[in-house]
Amino acid sequence: MTRQELISLIRERRSFLCVGLDTDPAKMPAHLRDRQDGVFLFNRAIIDATIDHCVAYKPNLAFYEALGIEGLRQLKLTMDYIHGLGKPVFTIADAKRGDIGNTSERYARAFLDPQGDFNFDAITVAPYMGADSVQPFTVYDGKWVILLALTSNKGAFDFQLLPTYSSPKLGEGDRREAVGEGCVPLYQRVLETSKQWGNEENMMYVVGATKAEMLTDVRRIVPGSFLLVPGVGAQGGSLEEVCRYGLTKDCGLLVNSSRGIIYASNGEDFAEAAGREAQKLQQQMAAVL
Amino acid sequence: MTRQELISLIRERRSFLCVGLDTDPAKMPAHLRDRQDGVFLFNRAIIDATIDHCVAYKPNLAFYEALGIEGLRQLKLTMDYIHGLGKPVFTIADAKRGDIGNTSERYARAFLDPQGDFNFDAITVAPYMGADSVQPFTVYDGKWVILLALTSNKGAFDFQLLPTYSSPKLGEGDRREAVGEGCVPLYQRVLETSKQWGNEENMMYVVGATKAEMLTDVRRIVPGSFLLVPGVGAQGGSLEEVCRYGLTKDCGLLVNSSRGIIYASNGEDFAEAAGREAQKLQQQMAAVL
Repeated sequence: MTRQELISLIRERRSFLCVGLDTDPAKMPAHLRDRQDGVFLFNRAIIDATIDHCVAYKPNLAFYEALGIEGLRQLKLTMDYIHGLGKPVFTIADAKRGDIGNTSERYARAFLDPQGDFNFDAITVAPYMGADSVQPFTVYDGKWVILLALTSNKGAFDFQLLPTYSSPKLGEGDRREAVGEGCVPLYQRVLETSKQWGNEENMMYVVGATKAEMLTDVRRIVPGSFLLVPGVGAQGGSLEEVCRYGLTKDCGLLVNSSRGIIYASNGEDFAEAAGREAQKLQQQMAAVL
Repeated sequence: MTRQELISLIRERRSFLCVGLDTDPAKMPAHLRDRQDGVFLFNRAIIDATIDHCVAYKPNLAFYEALGIEGLRQLKLTMDYIHGLGKPVFTIADAKRGDIGNTSERYARAFLDPQGDFNFDAITVAPYMGADSVQPFTVYDGKWVILLALTSNKGAFDFQLLPTYSSPKLGEGDRREAVGEGCVPLYQRVLETSKQWGNEENMMYVVGATKAEMLTDVRRIVPGSFLLVPGVGAQGGSLEEVCRYGLTKDCGLLVNSSRGIIYASNGEDFAEAAGREAQKLQQQMAAVL
């Protein structure tokens, strides 16, 4: 899905909601828990109940991999179902991959290749290994890399906020000497450096909602890029704050909610409950757009 | 496999060689390329030819995921074969995972759980998301997290070598102000900080061989930890240099070679050729131990 198509979809549905399909059998309603394709059946019901209120689905790969190869089969059933719906929706593999160049190419193929088992529109990628670990995800037409910048967990404070100096030139004097430029937090360095690796048509960023005021700094560096914002709801972020600091004229946001929607009820009415929660968020989003 | 068992295995085989099972159907010998279980058959032959010369196998997940769910089935066959051999060998899922705490728990289960499809001894993890993304991998007895510190690719220069200051205290003054301590490259900060998350019994580090002299700095921070060293051979690293700077009294090294071994020949003699290359490295290692 191209940037223009995504923007049109957001305008049409009056929503920038992404539903996180972090499906955990232990939290599913009892009547689905022991069914052979329970995870898929759960996802299908959630999708049917939410698709008119959202623009994106984001399965987190860990939830499927934890179930072994069988879990990935359930994910494939889910993706096949989404592709067969005939309703446009953006799909994100929340996989947080990244490896040396020739290996990242293979991850890109696994998740983004239209001939592959999953055919996602986008994949989340960790930036630690640098340029050649990220660029292979930008080569598929209409597909996206979503780079981790500032995540919504406590561990984000360990490295992402460390003050950094610009890259040292190895072999030219002491590499521990700070050189040039100012001192900026690592996540801002990631934003700044990665602009050379992609553009607003193929690269987005993960920016956690629990630190919404930092979106001001983010927007200074990537004024027009789409941001995927997790952490609204269960993790404590506020939709209002995210919009205040992050919204652009093209929207520029995908706001994710997982647990708050898919586990709104664990009874047989789980899908209706999920639909209601998604609609609530959609209405708040429509008011902002 | 515990640290003591790993050290004993290294002494017994007189080797600290890790064979990277980065199996690419396009590079396999013609007679296996179109076989139903070709990837597994290739791996099995490589394993049979190399197991007496090495102490570890490291399949890179990207190579299997690129083949879809079928690729993971080939990986499971490979792991089942290794577990059934009755010869001890350390197994590493080179998966470079990492996510928020409750999600990393699921990745840990996917790769390390003895009841799971793969039952690896260890998994590689990216540090960008901090403590809660790494700690869930340390809770399985006798299992390991191998944290990326300094990787062997060009992109390592983008962030891993950035000079950093110690963690800012948010909300107490300007977070861009450098505070306390000296200025050290990010990868050293990762080593230093992560020592609070695990110990020499459950945490190793990836340190690329292409920058072997940096092992001196690494050993200053983690004097006794095992290091997984990729990049010897095809990527240009030297075994001699790695040993000079990285060896400890307990060995403390697992040196990986992938392409140099598994693609030593692409004819029907591929396994024998792989065995010869592995033995060559083993003999160099025996001389050092």
